[in-house]
Amino acid sequence: MTWFNPCCYIQCSGLRMNRREFEASVYLRNDHLTIECILTVRRSRVSTTQFVNKIEAPPSSSITEQLAKLLEAEENADVTFSVGGETIGAHKILLAVRSPVFRAELFGPMKESKVTIEDMQPAVFRALLHFIYTDSLPDVDQNDAGESNSDLIWHLLVAADRYAVDRLKSLCESILCKNLDVETLSTTLALAYQHNCDKLKDICLEFISSSSVMDALMATDGYKDLKTTCPSALIDMFEKTLKFHKK
Amino acid sequence: MTWFNPCCYIQCSGLRMNRREFEASVYLRNDHLTIECILTVRRSRVSTTQFVNKIEAPPSSSITEQLAKLLEAEENADVTFSVGGETIGAHKILLAVRSPVFRAELFGPMKESKVTIEDMQPAVFRALLHFIYTDSLPDVDQNDAGESNSDLIWHLLVAADRYAVDRLKSLCESILCKNLDVETLSTTLALAYQHNCDKLKDICLEFISSSSVMDALMATDGYKDLKTTCPSALIDMFEKTLKFHKK
Repeated sequence: MTWFNPCCYIQCSGLRMNRREFEASVYLRNDHLTIECILTVRRSRVSTTQFVNKIEAPPSSSITEQLAKLLEAEENADVTFSVGGETIGAHKILLAVRSPVFRAELFGPMKESKVTIEDMQPAVFRALLHFIYTDSLPDVDQNDAGESNSDLIWHLLVAADRYAVDRLKSLCESILCKNLDVETLSTTLALAYQHNCDKLKDICLEFISSSSVMDALMATDGYKDLKTTCPSALIDMFEKTLKFHKK
Repeated sequence: MTWFNPCCYIQCSGLRMNRREFEASVYLRNDHLTIECILTVRRSRVSTTQFVNKIEAPPSSSITEQLAKLLEAEENADVTFSVGGETIGAHKILLAVRSPVFRAELFGPMKESKVTIEDMQPAVFRALLHFIYTDSLPDVDQNDAGESNSDLIWHLLVAADRYAVDRLKSLCESILCKNLDVETLSTTLALAYQHNCDKLKDICLEFISSSSVMDALMATDGYKDLKTTCPSALIDMFEKTLKFHKK
């Protein structure tokens, strides 16, 4: 048996000896050392990388689509609303989970099953229900919402505030903010004051004071209405405009 | 009055004449022509670009979060399930809108309000309900789902098939496909055969035939079970493997 390195040691299972000790030991027989090894082979996890994404998970949520169809079909409705001469069926549990006002009304002591909605157009109430069931507005893309939608959005803001559907209220504020112009400004400003939309109020006032729309605004019917419906808005508007021009 | 172009005409409000006719007309007085113009000035829409996005619409959907809380609280539940000794409250309309099997059971002639679920663990039924209410799996990130989740996913696949919740079934197939390995292969393959998951079946067979897992697979308990539970899977497996090696 040849030792390539004289300093080398045999060390195995706690046994440690140098060359001289080894040559004198029982392990060396006929100049041969027999080493028994027990190999434990662990099965490696075969890679499945090549198969990953071969079955795509269905990409989009289907729950809101299914709820939209449920609302449209009024299937198994357990509450009916009379709104401006129309009757609309809906589902108590969905209304209650999305609006604390509906929860109190439908699951409170009164446990209403037939409800008359005053002071709301059917189209607005339907849009409110659509949002409650789907978290989205009906046929109104919030990015493309043009002037023609302002009327619906104003009424929806009021409805969202009345039924405490906070996300809808924020969404309406966001759309109104994108569509500010001279014609819509007074109404949007009045609603912002009446329904505690502080951000929208600030943006309306900023828009008026920092642009040259004041003369045009004062010529609108909405401005005349503001004098009676929301004089505080006019006062804030003049104060802010004066401050801006003093800068 | 100077005519720069002798061919030029006066044409206004339907009146049309040439130079000679014009010079002879009543419109030219003391070599002067008076033109009265009525200008309609349309107010231009003042740009609101600077205000766009000042009010961000709330980014994420809140409906699934609200439904998750509803399920957890079992508030106003109108149906109770007995599953493996546990009682779980839920809401009929949500179950019906998401599963045609629940719809038939809860709104069909029987109109059940107390339902006993056989052959299902409570944890699996709870996960099924969680998906029904939220379109997502509970505490299982489908990208990170490791081996430890395979057991739940297998049972959920069976539950999704039983209640025809198709999107959940696809989701389970997708997760099982990502987690294929020797230990899980036989069970996944058997389920794919028993519940008509064609894509998952094909991917299992492809995985077995194109990798060197056959020996390891045959040593598993799952393989022995396959002989009795799903012999057709074994036959397809051997056929596909033979074909692959002849290539």
